[in-house]
Amino acid sequence: MRSFRFRILEKDKKTKARVGEIATRHGVIKTPAFVPVGTQASIKSLTPDEMKEVGVQLFFVNTYHMYLRPGIEVVEKLGGLHKFMGWDGPIMTDSGGFQVFSLGRSDLTKIIEEGVEFRSHWDGTKHLFTPESSMEWQWRMGGDIHIAFDDCTGYPVTHAVAKKSMERTHRWASRCKAANVKCQMSNVKMGRPYQALYGSIQGSVYEDLRKESAKYISTLDFDGIAIGGVSVGETKKEMVKVLDWVVPILPEEKPRHLLGVGEIDDIFALVEHGIDTFDCVMPTRLARMGKLLGNKEIDITKKIFAEDKKPIHPLCRCYTCTHFSRAYVHHLFHVKELLAYRLATIHNLWFIHRFMDDIRQSIARGTLVALKKKWI
Amino acid sequence: MRSFRFRILEKDKKTKARVGEIATRHGVIKTPAFVPVGTQASIKSLTPDEMKEVGVQLFFVNTYHMYLRPGIEVVEKLGGLHKFMGWDGPIMTDSGGFQVFSLGRSDLTKIIEEGVEFRSHWDGTKHLFTPESSMEWQWRMGGDIHIAFDDCTGYPVTHAVAKKSMERTHRWASRCKAANVKCQMSNVKMGRPYQALYGSIQGSVYEDLRKESAKYISTLDFDGIAIGGVSVGETKKEMVKVLDWVVPILPEEKPRHLLGVGEIDDIFALVEHGIDTFDCVMPTRLARMGKLLGNKEIDITKKIFAEDKKPIHPLCRCYTCTHFSRAYVHHLFHVKELLAYRLATIHNLWFIHRFMDDIRQSIARGTLVALKKKWI
Repeated sequence: MRSFRFRILEKDKKTKARVGEIATRHGVIKTPAFVPVGTQASIKSLTPDEMKEVGVQLFFVNTYHMYLRPGIEVVEKLGGLHKFMGWDGPIMTDSGGFQVFSLGRSDLTKIIEEGVEFRSHWDGTKHLFTPESSMEWQWRMGGDIHIAFDDCTGYPVTHAVAKKSMERTHRWASRCKAANVKCQMSNVKMGRPYQALYGSIQGSVYEDLRKESAKYISTLDFDGIAIGGVSVGETKKEMVKVLDWVVPILPEEKPRHLLGVGEIDDIFALVEHGIDTFDCVMPTRLARMGKLLGNKEIDITKKIFAEDKKPIHPLCRCYTCTHFSRAYVHHLFHVKELLAYRLATIHNLWFIHRFMDDIRQSIARGTLVALKKKWI
Repeated sequence: MRSFRFRILEKDKKTKARVGEIATRHGVIKTPAFVPVGTQASIKSLTPDEMKEVGVQLFFVNTYHMYLRPGIEVVEKLGGLHKFMGWDGPIMTDSGGFQVFSLGRSDLTKIIEEGVEFRSHWDGTKHLFTPESSMEWQWRMGGDIHIAFDDCTGYPVTHAVAKKSMERTHRWASRCKAANVKCQMSNVKMGRPYQALYGSIQGSVYEDLRKESAKYISTLDFDGIAIGGVSVGETKKEMVKVLDWVVPILPEEKPRHLLGVGEIDDIFALVEHGIDTFDCVMPTRLARMGKLLGNKEIDITKKIFAEDKKPIHPLCRCYTCTHFSRAYVHHLFHVKELLAYRLATIHNLWFIHRFMDDIRQSIARGTLVALKKKWI
């Protein structure tokens, strides 16, 4: 039996937004869900207990980083990602494709039909990622949701280049699907539960390509659909267009993940277009810069907070806001104490998870548009 | 009434070791006690909750650092150190003297009878620390135990220089005592509880001076006695000699604090000489370097731990050891994840506090010598 199920619980009448549940062998994810990124199998400074406490439902780990350090073998020997990092909730791993293109030294990255040859951004050593190896590595790490290895188009690209890249993505998607079948057969033999695989849509900013990609990927019987290539360059600004083109083509009953997008300003647009999950480094990255989320984002490193007795956000119930003043958090940032980054990360992740709670509730109640008005 | 009391509960028959209790308005400290240092009002990466969990009884904050950033006024406005950092247990502040000498740019540090003129190690601005200002600032920050402002002799120094410096320390001790009386009178008027003051003994490595200093400081009716100038240079090696000279002169009924010493290897010597509390940055500093305490210290950054499934220390019950493998902690250090420093700090502080539990128990049971043999 597939230990992966998605069901839609409520639909918004005015938009394509929907409330649902993704059931995995490590727990249920209520959607729409924000997915924090722990690139190297750790959310900057937080323990798994704290991740639970702030409301993390699904945790995103980068295969590229794990492949280089500590190595897939090590993660496997240590009992897989869940055991390795002490997180017993659902985990999503990516294909490694995006990092291979963005972190691999671009002049030394070579795309061939077999896969991508690149040099490590750490030590310059040579490596080859293929659809088959990406599937195998994700399988060996044991996450709950895997993503197919795609050819991540850069930006800007001509229509011709984007088309070629998309077609390669489609061939690779078929190879991923085949490799995944083998992994699942091994799981059955080994008595290990099913692991889900999402196909990835590319096509840059071109309507015909995006639609073609959405159609093709939808035919391959993936467990879910990921939309890739939206987080780079101008594509981000054209995100709404891409979603307008793509989403109506996608099968209603499958969960949809948007890769690498999820700033507060984006979230209403994603949700209204029927996106179910999305990963983004921004809330945690902003936290480490002292930028703290709220109805209005504040920069806690500014001098005006040096004697401010109030919590970061007056109504927030996170550990940071219920225990410390703005003045103390300001002080910790000012003197570069490690606790600063931790308290800020707790706040930002708490905030965005409560924001998603509100969004799910408003969809169920039919008040999403009103909630959006309150915010924008 | 003085909300500060010390009582001796048990004495070792073979050494000068003793088990006692220091009662402060923020709680009781079981002695002998290790006192972790949170220079800037934070133990690197830990929350006050975690400090409690690992067993911190008394927390050491540097007045010099608080004076420069965020400033004494800010701490006072925010309700004092306890409220500022969210720690409701006992706090000890130092006089600022040691840092003025060691962190102030030495060529710009000028000792005058009034006090010490120096330039900030942050921005080069000019400041004056005096016995009176040190007393006032510690009082305004509201710690439970304060330390008298002394002239911290450098190393090495001639007998003549050490003598001059010690005599100045004595004159300053009297001025501190007088200033402290005024602070206490204000406390009475304001309905604030009594704050303890420890006098500080100097005298470098010279027997006559150390003895003279111990005698003089003992006459001044301080609440406790601090032994200064032992953590610098060769004096550390001669620590046992200094303790041999000084301790027999000290009043039995007053608590004794050794400033800036407390590596694992030192602790038996301190305790056997009748030291009740001692502050040291080493367990937390070592943690951030990946050096993890145990029966045998391990360097978790070494490659041999990359696939090690065991906890840092097999018998340790700290959060880190009960949740994570050596391999994961090694990985976090290797990729420089913030969680690394936190998990290591938790372990080292847990370890040293359990070690102190064992030491107190062994004194009470008369088995201190046997415990020491087991360790050394």
